[in-house]
Amino acid sequence: MCDTCGCGDPTVIPVEIRESLLARNDHQAQHNREHLEEAGVLAVNLMGSPGSGKTALLEALAKLSTGRRIQAVSGDLATTRDSDRLTAAGIPCRAITTGTACHLDADMVHHALHHMEWRECEWFFIENVGNLVCPAIYDLGQAANIVALSVTEGEDKPLKYPVMFQHTDLVVLTKVDLLPHLDFDLAALEDALARVVPEPRMLRVSAQTGEGIEAFAEWLAKRAQ
Amino acid sequence: MCDTCGCGDPTVIPVEIRESLLARNDHQAQHNREHLEEAGVLAVNLMGSPGSGKTALLEALAKLSTGRRIQAVSGDLATTRDSDRLTAAGIPCRAITTGTACHLDADMVHHALHHMEWRECEWFFIENVGNLVCPAIYDLGQAANIVALSVTEGEDKPLKYPVMFQHTDLVVLTKVDLLPHLDFDLAALEDALARVVPEPRMLRVSAQTGEGIEAFAEWLAKRAQ
Repeated sequence: MCDTCGCGDPTVIPVEIRESLLARNDHQAQHNREHLEEAGVLAVNLMGSPGSGKTALLEALAKLSTGRRIQAVSGDLATTRDSDRLTAAGIPCRAITTGTACHLDADMVHHALHHMEWRECEWFFIENVGNLVCPAIYDLGQAANIVALSVTEGEDKPLKYPVMFQHTDLVVLTKVDLLPHLDFDLAALEDALARVVPEPRMLRVSAQTGEGIEAFAEWLAKRAQ
Repeated sequence: MCDTCGCGDPTVIPVEIRESLLARNDHQAQHNREHLEEAGVLAVNLMGSPGSGKTALLEALAKLSTGRRIQAVSGDLATTRDSDRLTAAGIPCRAITTGTACHLDADMVHHALHHMEWRECEWFFIENVGNLVCPAIYDLGQAANIVALSVTEGEDKPLKYPVMFQHTDLVVLTKVDLLPHLDFDLAALEDALARVVPEPRMLRVSAQTGEGIEAFAEWLAKRAQ
């Protein structure tokens, strides 16, 4: 998160402004959460680096016959590309174009919900802006946090971005079809993850081959119970 | 950048605070720039997503016999891993651990410079925090901006993160050794880049094979003239 924003160095931004910004967001997030839970909708905040495969993961999920009604919102600074891809994949989706903002906040999600028939769905994905830092500290009202981490990003990311990984309920290791072409040490990633998350949960998936997508759907189904 | 920080939505953070934060950073950046230019040091702000290969690019550069004296600072939220790697590769480097901050700012770089013999180098790399959003708007006093974009991140990143690419002098397309294993459309990337940058400049490199690293060194040498 920005050291000049609501979450960083209090010597730069007055502490009372920082706290009121985050308190306001938390208040709106709680409002979102109450409505979503009341309607029995599993809301998932899907985060990850740019190009980590968040949209591709949901496209692959849509290809499965899960029988679940899925909807999404998709955050992007400047385009509706991800939202368009999800809609084309059969997931009704509303784009949230953030302009300069590096993360979604609870207000943006709330506004989007007001334009959707979200009560009709069972799984509601909030695809966040591609960023491994700032999105982690903005509660959106979700029931679960998922981080998509691609194998090409390296094994050390949990150590380098601990706040993101500490906030996650599930790490989805994406693009595992590329593993034969990489010098990637899965044990090193598991070790790094275990150092920042007490009980890490990780699934290996490939949107390309479909590997692990069923297990991902099972995790969601269990979480929704 | 955060909509709650110095650079985003003025309805959230008071506009006068936002402007004074950025003005203060710009002032410090200008101070850094004057000292660096006076000493004839080429300062480069190296940005890119987490795992885009920024550190590996500099490691590969260090392997070339450029005859250049290179130093660096390396920003990371929580570890000194990248800095340790660069030091091991023969590039004297100081780690800037940002804690929760998603980008480097001019103050952090200024502080680091005071602990280094930076006047002894010709090329000074400022490896930013892995983030394709926020680092773009914080001037550090650099002479050039470089974005490392890996082929696994997809062709659409310039469209999705336009501010970052608009601020760049050179895009270094990394991990091109993986191209045979990907469904990557280089023409689509070039097209996306041309839509946001008037005169885009891009080099294709692989830290793994060494492809393109000499061309990268030549670009730097020319820029330093």
